[in-house]
Amino acid sequence: MAKRPFPLSKVYGLLEPGPVVLLTTVHKGKANVMAMSWHMMLEFEPPRVACIVSSRNFSFDALKATRQCVINIPTAELAAKVVSCGNSSGRRVEKFKAFGLTPVSASLVGAPLIAECYASLECRVIDARMVSRYNLFVLEVLKAWIDPSCKAPRTLHHRGRGVFMVAGETIKLRSKMK
Amino acid sequence: MAKRPFPLSKVYGLLEPGPVVLLTTVHKGKANVMAMSWHMMLEFEPPRVACIVSSRNFSFDALKATRQCVINIPTAELAAKVVSCGNSSGRRVEKFKAFGLTPVSASLVGAPLIAECYASLECRVIDARMVSRYNLFVLEVLKAWIDPSCKAPRTLHHRGRGVFMVAGETIKLRSKMK
Repeated sequence: MAKRPFPLSKVYGLLEPGPVVLLTTVHKGKANVMAMSWHMMLEFEPPRVACIVSSRNFSFDALKATRQCVINIPTAELAAKVVSCGNSSGRRVEKFKAFGLTPVSASLVGAPLIAECYASLECRVIDARMVSRYNLFVLEVLKAWIDPSCKAPRTLHHRGRGVFMVAGETIKLRSKMK
Repeated sequence: MAKRPFPLSKVYGLLEPGPVVLLTTVHKGKANVMAMSWHMMLEFEPPRVACIVSSRNFSFDALKATRQCVINIPTAELAAKVVSCGNSSGRRVEKFKAFGLTPVSASLVGAPLIAECYASLECRVIDARMVSRYNLFVLEVLKAWIDPSCKAPRTLHHRGRGVFMVAGETIKLRSKMK
């Protein structure tokens, strides 16, 4: 997918629906991918995101040391690869190669975008004070990319134990909400 | 809907997919409801949830003062009421009455369950240290209720400005993930 820059002011609309994302990091020359569902918006603009990366995850040390990552949003076509990422550890598996994911250089961070994902958000850690208590990182999105041809992304939403809800129809209501 | 107790160990599966929820509070004899999308799981068991309640929201003072709330999960049939809750403030509107929502007494907290929602989670605030910086409350779910007849809930997922994705099909993949 050819991605184009996406306005930072619209990023919340990508994450607020709650999709599973693929978090990429790079540390000591080793890129890694983890599946992540525990994230939420913290601020509209600049877009800030809170996420939980367990200290048991291989990505934890990379995120803590480099303070950089990319949040990539996959669609249903990638479901098997998402589960493969979730079922394995970067300690033992070179996931990009093992699962056929294509790393693309980011513009502002060291971690790679994933070509196969329809959207990618380059992020840096702006607050690590809640890491020791909750494994909670506060990220700021520095640059956003999207595949403009993907109008109604069939995102994946994890219900637990490998059961995913796939994004269905869209409805529009008159709203003053942002 | 007649709700039954739901195991706390399974609560994450209700919130992890990222549905819009209706947060209820009660303060100084006044019950209120707000629409909320900025929430995430923090811990499996006991289930802990982080959420953002803006200090501009009427619910903020109630949550801060009482340290109790209920997270109610609506389905698509309630979309118009969800938007009505989001478009109005408890300062001016008695939302339960105005929007035809039915309050039901909770078992462990003062805030009411919403009868029309398929699931309700009674919560208390266990950490308010991130409120001043991020309006972030850490909740612990004390008691969970679900309508057992609602097998594939058509939850609402906000994309911004009144556009909602409605939960679609469910897929199951072989996974070691929780």
